Amino acid sequence: MEYNLTPRNKVKRIPKRGHYDQKTIFEILDAGFLCHVGFSMDGQPFVIPTAYGRDGDVIYLHGATTSRMLKHLETGAPCCITVTHLDGLVLARSVFNHSMNYRSAVLFGTASLLEGDEKMHALEVVSDQILKGRWDESRLPSPKEMKATSVLKFTIEEASAKIRTGDPGDDKPDYELPIWAGVIPIEQTYGEPIPDPLLKDGVEMGESVKRFVK
Amino acid sequence: MEYNLTPRNKVKRIPKRGHYDQKTIFEILDAGFLCHVGFSMDGQPFVIPTAYGRDGDVIYLHGATTSRMLKHLETGAPCCITVTHLDGLVLARSVFNHSMNYRSAVLFGTASLLEGDEKMHALEVVSDQILKGRWDESRLPSPKEMKATSVLKFTIEEASAKIRTGDPGDDKPDYELPIWAGVIPIEQTYGEPIPDPLLKDGVEMGESVKRFVK
Repeated sequence: MEYNLTPRNKVKRIPKRGHYDQKTIFEILDAGFLCHVGFSMDGQPFVIPTAYGRDGDVIYLHGATTSRMLKHLETGAPCCITVTHLDGLVLARSVFNHSMNYRSAVLFGTASLLEGDEKMHALEVVSDQILKGRWDESRLPSPKEMKATSVLKFTIEEASAKIRTGDPGDDKPDYELPIWAGVIPIEQTYGEPIPDPLLKDGVEMGESVKRFVK
Repeated sequence: MEYNLTPRNKVKRIPKRGHYDQKTIFEILDAGFLCHVGFSMDGQPFVIPTAYGRDGDVIYLHGATTSRMLKHLETGAPCCITVTHLDGLVLARSVFNHSMNYRSAVLFGTASLLEGDEKMHALEVVSDQILKGRWDESRLPSPKEMKATSVLKFTIEEASAKIRTGDPGDDKPDYELPIWAGVIPIEQTYGEPIPDPLLKDGVEMGESVKRFVK
């Protein structure tokens, strides 16, 4: 499935880097769990980092019921959610052709507040997106905790992805210059799990955490 | 120097994580080079990832002169720039107390278009922020390339930082549960430089790149 191209989601700069198919966009979303949420209040834009979970063409966001962002978004205010993965520095011979390798997805849509079973499901989706399996190993939310938490369902109306991969592209004459060119890869890496100093003796890691032991 | 607290930049959720001093905010900005820029057109928010450079209380942004974002921002439209570093997954015993360790800075202000010497200086600042020293090793921008590039100067009017560090914080009774708790550190790491397949024989890396050879 492809999202329609509109003035809102069309990639204008370097159109060949633009993608509109769900498969590409969902892969970018599934490779992360931190997004930047954009909204506007009285003409002032705000960009707030937060965790998310994807389920079909829906993005779940959560936070405290007192969150300004969530209270604003649950009114159905226009919203933009962006997820970016940085994959490398692209070092060309010319300053001008320097670039980055990256995968980003920009989503447009609106959100609504969840209650009941769907709210609990959404929290599990967010938890799974951050650390698969951790939900089942943890003490689940109490009614009081659920009451203190807002969960929003953002439906993707339009979206685009932008991707750059590969080597630098220099102007033809610049290839003769004695300047090193190439790519420095960048990756988000996980370190060895650090136990809570207050962990009781004999409590073992669950499978969700064990995967990170080197 | 501290930024004034206003309804726009005040950290409302978990106020103890909020910081308003330039030192803390600048450290977060200096630890990265990728920001998410928020702006609003006809009430629709947009969040676009892009590179930046900091110079005092100024953030430089650059891109093609045809960029919709830059053309909009150079009119002095309200803008929000956010920089986020993810430092770890915080695994509590309860789902509810799961969190992340992070450092984020949210900046408010407006931008204006640069020309001449300040424009060239700004490009060097952005280049240095991404990879210190690379500017001096590269073929510098030609007049034609400068003409195809817009550079904006965004002055920070208000700002806040939000930081979480350290171990999980659980509710008292939960410490008795046989559930592993702790932190999985997250880091952005650089890999071994990959030479451009079109690199001419005998061209050596500059010092800016050599630092990444393991």
